[in-house]
Amino acid sequence: MLVNTRHRTIEWGDCDPAGIVFNPRFFEWFDAATAALFVRALGITKAEMLRRYHCAGIPLVDTRATFLAPCSFGDEVRIESTVTEFRRSSFNVRHRLFRADATLAVEAFETRVWVTRAADRPGGIKAQAIPKDVLARFADPEAG
Amino acid sequence: MLVNTRHRTIEWGDCDPAGIVFNPRFFEWFDAATAALFVRALGITKAEMLRRYHCAGIPLVDTRATFLAPCSFGDEVRIESTVTEFRRSSFNVRHRLFRADATLAVEAFETRVWVTRAADRPGGIKAQAIPKDVLARFADPEAG
Amino acid sequence: MLVNTRHRTIEWGDCDPAGIVFNPRFFEWFDAATAALFVRALGITKAEMLRRYHCAGIPLVDTRATFLAPCSFGDEVRIESTVTEFRRSSFNVRHRLFRADATLAVEAFETRVWVTRAADRPGGIKAQAIPKDVLARFADPEAG
Amino acid sequence: MLVNTRHRTIEWGDCDPAGIVFNPRFFEWFDAATAALFVRALGITKAEMLRRYHCAGIPLVDTRATFLAPCSFGDEVRIESTVTEFRRSSFNVRHRLFRADATLAVEAFETRVWVTRAADRPGGIKAQAIPKDVLARFADPEAG
Repeated sequence: MLVNTRHRTIEWGDCDPAGIVFNPRFFEWFDAATAALFVRALGITKAEMLRRYHCAGIPLVDTRATFLAPCSFGDEVRIESTVTEFRRSSFNVRHRLFRADATLAVEAFETRVWVTRAADRPGGIKAQAIPKDVLARFADPEAG
Repeated sequence: MLVNTRHRTIEWGDCDPAGIVFNPRFFEWFDAATAALFVRALGITKAEMLRRYHCAGIPLVDTRATFLAPCSFGDEVRIESTVTEFRRSSFNVRHRLFRADATLAVEAFETRVWVTRAADRPGGIKAQAIPKDVLARFADPEAG
Repeated sequence: MLVNTRHRTIEWGDCDPAGIVFNPRFFEWFDAATAALFVRALGITKAEMLRRYHCAGIPLVDTRATFLAPCSFGDEVRIESTVTEFRRSSFNVRHRLFRADATLAVEAFETRVWVTRAADRPGGIKAQAIPKDVLARFADPEAG
Repeated sequence: MLVNTRHRTIEWGDCDPAGIVFNPRFFEWFDAATAALFVRALGITKAEMLRRYHCAGIPLVDTRATFLAPCSFGDEVRIESTVTEFRRSSFNVRHRLFRADATLAVEAFETRVWVTRAADRPGGIKAQAIPKDVLARFADPEAG
């Protein structure tokens, strides 16, 4: 399965008074990493993805993260993200965040749902089958 | 065991383009809720807790969260937090976030470690036994 | 003019490795304080305000902030917010953030615009005259 | 004077329910952009800068930002940062954030102070003259 890699620099403002990354920041980066994985697989922007597939987002329903080694400002980290399983309307993502010294610092697992606007409730959303075209592009991202 | 309750209003800036809370925000609130639980049990500020017990923080080593119902700006939510288990130097916390209509919106579990400064590495930290006094105050917060 | 006051506790995760509030946090709180000022004046939620007045938000177009004294985790702060001037479609807000010892820590000024959806561009917004009813309620919040 | 340029992708989680960047995010990026400007000029990491010059940080004392055009998720933006004036212990920074279509979206000005630990107050900081070596490297970043 497609693995997408992103790099980022840990910033001063990402860290807490102990000088290490404040944990919610990792979840911000993983959320962006999942989006980047879809952008990479589909070859279109997230905005275009929402329009083309009448998708209202891919909200998180369950997540687990293990923090194995601290990261601090100035660290250059690498995040590797992949979908480990697609089901009808939900899917699992795994993120691994490595420090420059190749230490695995954080490992996270997400379960997300493909949702569309619910016609019967203003502002409401409901799960929908992941489009076959999306599945096909993950299976063969070069086919575009 | 002591349960601490906090209330907060979901803000516009807590929400994403789908109009629901951006998930890392929940982890910010749970981090603050754990701190508030210790402040409540110990009867002192977090800064005073760090000084008194030569503690360098209580970093998260593992967390799991399940998102059961969405929250949106203007919602008044309630977070109930409790330590479910103390071990030698680590402990588990459970947070439950409820909407005003009593719907359980998010349930989260944390494993955290009580750390002190490592004398042998500048900026380093290491796990340490949770002080008996801290355990005693959680068992009987009124004894103060 | 109506002054709205909010209280908050500075959290560990609001602070940077120097142990003081990371400055973007103040802008988060001021954004929420402006929303709370409108909620207070209008007597309705922000979501209801958007619906009732066909408003798409009150985005910031200009802001200035002066940081006079640092704040750290555990500090209990007070934010006083008021509209200092209403114009046709824009208005000015002033926020003053005080520490518990009454020290003025941050003073900020915002210029915001009342916007509505632009019919001619998907996702676009345009400035619109602030509804007279909104102005009336700020002038006399008790009239409701 | 040295101008440093950074690129970033606007993420879904950077945006609010109106679908545009939540304004405090810009201040996060400008804070990181100022740090990157110093890293570029000095040729060392921020952590090394703090150690070498016994610096406790470069906190913001005043900022002004003008928001000229909205940015939304998926936008690729460019931030150009430069020091416009160095004084004894304070200095001014200007940031310009451009969208991919070259539109100037945000312009911001910062006044920051070079601080060191105050020996007489635990946790306290005080302004200090900016080291001559730092000034020299900004004037001639290639001299390293």
